[in-house]
Amino acid sequence: MLPKPLQQLQKFFEKFPGIGPRQASRFVFFLSKQPKEYIESFIQSLQSMSTEVKLCSNCNLPGLKKNNLCTICSDSRRDKKTIYVVEKEGDALNLEKTNIHNGVYFVLGKNISPVEKTQSAKEQVKNLVKKLKRETNPEVILALNNTREGNFTAMYIKEMFKENELNNVTLTSLGRGLSTGSELEYADEETLRNALKNRH
Amino acid sequence: MLPKPLQQLQKFFEKFPGIGPRQASRFVFFLSKQPKEYIESFIQSLQSMSTEVKLCSNCNLPGLKKNNLCTICSDSRRDKKTIYVVEKEGDALNLEKTNIHNGVYFVLGKNISPVEKTQSAKEQVKNLVKKLKRETNPEVILALNNTREGNFTAMYIKEMFKENELNNVTLTSLGRGLSTGSELEYADEETLRNALKNRH
Repeated sequence: MLPKPLQQLQKFFEKFPGIGPRQASRFVFFLSKQPKEYIESFIQSLQSMSTEVKLCSNCNLPGLKKNNLCTICSDSRRDKKTIYVVEKEGDALNLEKTNIHNGVYFVLGKNISPVEKTQSAKEQVKNLVKKLKRETNPEVILALNNTREGNFTAMYIKEMFKENELNNVTLTSLGRGLSTGSELEYADEETLRNALKNRH
Repeated sequence: MLPKPLQQLQKFFEKFPGIGPRQASRFVFFLSKQPKEYIESFIQSLQSMSTEVKLCSNCNLPGLKKNNLCTICSDSRRDKKTIYVVEKEGDALNLEKTNIHNGVYFVLGKNISPVEKTQSAKEQVKNLVKKLKRETNPEVILALNNTREGNFTAMYIKEMFKENELNNVTLTSLGRGLSTGSELEYADEETLRNALKNRH
């Protein structure tokens, strides 16, 4: 029923994170009703992203090509020796909002899984190790999800640090316990155990 | 934290139907990691949509510009006198999947609301009336959502048909009752009332 150009466009949107065929078709209908100028400036915006943005060589966050580094890594007020290891860019974005730290990030891109192929993430851990070898007394904070995969990734990173004898690195992880607004009655066992262990 | 070109791109995605700032930023991160060729063919696809597609002058569904009408309206095997009035394109897409009818569609674009400004939808009802005046004994099936707004729209259309003395039109609405898989225990009163009335 959809004309060819719209079918092709729908395929692109289906590959977007979290988007299924139904929402992809909604996007296509939305765009097909926009005025020509809207589509043109949308295309313009995609083009400037493609020509002006590249991933930061230091932390993998997107930054301006002409600066080589991202906004955070090129900021002289940032403490380059305190590194927050996160799974994805959105995690860094969320940590930035807390405004309580002044370090830099390192984006793995994906968690390391015991079952899936996650070669690129392992490659990133190697890059992190190389980077840390060059620093004097760096601090690494693992800011990974409290999920099976997040915890497996943390384990893998700790192992790699040991293997590479990174004894100069101070390594910590984000605290575990009750989330804000959570009720004891509904907390799972693991959360309760952590909350007890980390009481203050 | 995001470079300017990505902030601009995020704004575009925030206007997409059903997309908030968080998912918009996820889209932007996803695109910033794609190879240049991917972005180029995505842009290509948007461009062909913009140059090759326009809304069908008969039913408002998107169709190829060179054909003037959409695939359905330009199909000679379709019964042009049986018209399904739907709120949005996705509804037509879903009805097409049932394969049980051979008519054409008429997309309102939006439901008519008693509180919001819905001038464009009322304009579309006028267009529908004009179209029906030209047909001999057309059949109209109101395929609108069973919601307050969908029902208000149906009422408005019926009123307009009366006002314009469209006595030659056979007007029906989609049946109301228990959905497939729904359990009596959880059905709301209105659904039960309809199911009783329309028993067979």
